[in-house]
Amino acid sequence: MAHKLKIVYCTQCRWLFRASWMTQELLTTFEQELDEVALAPGSGGTFDVILNEKTIFSRSEEGRFPESKELKQLVRDQIAPHRDLGHSDR
Amino acid sequence: MAHKLKIVYCTQCRWLFRASWMTQELLTTFEQELDEVALAPGSGGTFDVILNEKTIFSRSEEGRFPESKELKQLVRDQIAPHRDLGHSDR
Repeated sequence: MAHKLKIVYCTQCRWLFRASWMTQELLTTFEQELDEVALAPGSGGTFDVILNEKTIFSRSEEGRFPESKELKQLVRDQIAPHRDLGHSDR
Repeated sequence: MAHKLKIVYCTQCRWLFRASWMTQELLTTFEQELDEVALAPGSGGTFDVILNEKTIFSRSEEGRFPESKELKQLVRDQIAPHRDLGHSDR
């Protein structure tokens, strides 16, 4: 199955660089599993992480940003449940 | 029309960071016009830039990487032909 992740970020808040960093973290960890990670300009304080059309983290719902480790665990649980993430699992 | 850009990069060559930089350049310049820019892991020395399913730059064909300015002009010509890119047009 093709796994597509998308991060929608608020341009006015200048979260492109944060979103871009997360993209690099995820593509480094899941380069075999992810077919693509897309960055999509948004507005209104949005920082949503969407995996295969399903939102796995939303800043507006959580009231905070996701940590890199947390996002890796959320993605792993969906696309590579048996994968040990090493220090990102402790 | 929704404009989608994708950069396919060779993971073994470690071109993620170059592709990520280009993504930031393009999303900064075309944040109104581009709906998303995706990074897609590839292999075999690939560095392809695909706009709306059409390849606009291929490292294997050109024998070199695209410059940031060049890529912005190629994208502009397709999605915002009347747009002046300022110093990226000189």
